[in-house]
Amino acid sequence: MAMLTYDMIIEAAERIQGEAVRTPMLRADALDRRYKCRLLFKPEPLQRTGSFKFRGAFNKVSQLSEPAVVAYSSGNHAQGVAAAAHLLGKSATIVMPEDSPVLKIERTKGWGAEVRLYDRYRESREAIGEQIAKEQGAALIRPFEDWDVMAGQGTAGLELAQDCEAQGIVPDHAIACCGGGGLTAGFGTALKHHFPDIEVHAAEPVTHNDTERSLAEGKIVENDPAARSICDAIVSPSPGEMTFSINQPMLKGALTASDEQTMQAMAMLFSELKIVAEPGGAIATAVFMAHADRFIGKTVLIMISGGNVDPGLYRDIFAVA
Amino acid sequence: MAMLTYDMIIEAAERIQGEAVRTPMLRADALDRRYKCRLLFKPEPLQRTGSFKFRGAFNKVSQLSEPAVVAYSSGNHAQGVAAAAHLLGKSATIVMPEDSPVLKIERTKGWGAEVRLYDRYRESREAIGEQIAKEQGAALIRPFEDWDVMAGQGTAGLELAQDCEAQGIVPDHAIACCGGGGLTAGFGTALKHHFPDIEVHAAEPVTHNDTERSLAEGKIVENDPAARSICDAIVSPSPGEMTFSINQPMLKGALTASDEQTMQAMAMLFSELKIVAEPGGAIATAVFMAHADRFIGKTVLIMISGGNVDPGLYRDIFAVA
Repeated sequence: MAMLTYDMIIEAAERIQGEAVRTPMLRADALDRRYKCRLLFKPEPLQRTGSFKFRGAFNKVSQLSEPAVVAYSSGNHAQGVAAAAHLLGKSATIVMPEDSPVLKIERTKGWGAEVRLYDRYRESREAIGEQIAKEQGAALIRPFEDWDVMAGQGTAGLELAQDCEAQGIVPDHAIACCGGGGLTAGFGTALKHHFPDIEVHAAEPVTHNDTERSLAEGKIVENDPAARSICDAIVSPSPGEMTFSINQPMLKGALTASDEQTMQAMAMLFSELKIVAEPGGAIATAVFMAHADRFIGKTVLIMISGGNVDPGLYRDIFAVA
Repeated sequence: MAMLTYDMIIEAAERIQGEAVRTPMLRADALDRRYKCRLLFKPEPLQRTGSFKFRGAFNKVSQLSEPAVVAYSSGNHAQGVAAAAHLLGKSATIVMPEDSPVLKIERTKGWGAEVRLYDRYRESREAIGEQIAKEQGAALIRPFEDWDVMAGQGTAGLELAQDCEAQGIVPDHAIACCGGGGLTAGFGTALKHHFPDIEVHAAEPVTHNDTERSLAEGKIVENDPAARSICDAIVSPSPGEMTFSINQPMLKGALTASDEQTMQAMAMLFSELKIVAEPGGAIATAVFMAHADRFIGKTVLIMISGGNVDPGLYRDIFAVA
């Protein structure tokens, strides 16, 4: 059946075991005091390739018979697929925007993948990816419109749920960044299975609140193509049809933060958690900080989804924070 | 018996369980490719209070009957003792150098401790600490000359040993920073129990190579009091008598790195591991990078001991790296 289930997430966890890092659940006592709540963080910058995307990519690629894969991505899915392909003995071609962070392009090449750059605002990455797939007989690994990719991302939520249960913690809220919605779908599905009353929130840049507006309108709506955000990892044009079918009934809602709030969250994660987060990786934290009043007295799970950021950006961040 | 044993480290692990973070063992594929070896990192910046010092402090303070504790520290032991005292319902007074990083002083106060500043180059912290202990009837928690503190620090090595065994890995080398020698003593004792052939190396600033010279001369020698290093966490005047009695027969040797090499290691840990390391926390990595040729083909455990660094320093680091 083409669908996302809890059992698929359990199976994904078995597939990635020993290949993915089981990232710890981190607390931050000073933040609990400051915000009068209990915060528990999932630091996926520590994941192999520096973001949660390795989970979904490995779960997907490990089930394929094709000797070659192709993917399009702004950089984190790129590295995830490139690493999974390398580890599983397959070749990989990755289609990346020419304005991707240099670090992400170099890391993707570092895994032996061939990188094809394109113009994010004038070319269709889907069309380029599909053409390469056809030419090479390669499997196309979509970044979020894929049940196995979503199930893989869900293992991050599963691990958090297991860690909470081991400590007798029942979380009230969970916040995860939302671009196409693959992480949110898997993450929320895993958490809701263990904690049916948990409220799961999607975190978006205020300039790219497609999920917030799609939930409000009851149908998929797109972002303004002219909108710009520092959150390069999560500026997908709109929710996916498959992801939205999971997220629409599951999410409590979506919350937004500005680029400046995201930069402040990056500085906070640096100082308090000693974690390097990229902008898209910090937006769930930014959303929490921007809406902290509603979480007083609650236990809140916060996903830090990735850390692939050029060091130069941090100079600006310390100037702002 | 006044001594450090493996069983004491096992008991310490039981005492800190649920209070300390069980930090993960991290790999870095890109570094393995670059240096032609297998590196496994223990990221203690993720530990409660931002350094491994919480382990030893909690192990010690949890065994005391006194309602008050006093400690002297450049900042990480300070926070560890302040946090342990707070969590165990005791009051704490911490004697800190007036040139400690601002972040470390504020974090210590954040745990409710009273902070007494002193002049690192003109006053004796031991004398101030002992006077306060006598006046208040408080227990003095020494930063390294204490078997229970050493046993607590050893839990970081125990966890690494357990994680290696779970993955069938037999490490060849381990590198840990060395100030007074408490971490090295506990860390090495735990690892040697599981892997008798492992070679344990102390990492020191080239300006503060007291352990290197003490090992060479077969007796404890001191650093030049006029020497300066950015590694504020590990510039103790000399090895301790108790720690050196453990480290002298156990260590393979000591290796050094310059401040500039330490800054390069900080930048590398930021980009590759997404971990914020303070200078003293990065020196084991710096030492590895400075002596990488001798580790080709080997499995090397590297301790990242702490991450309590003022963000301003990172601006200089990105300029150097």
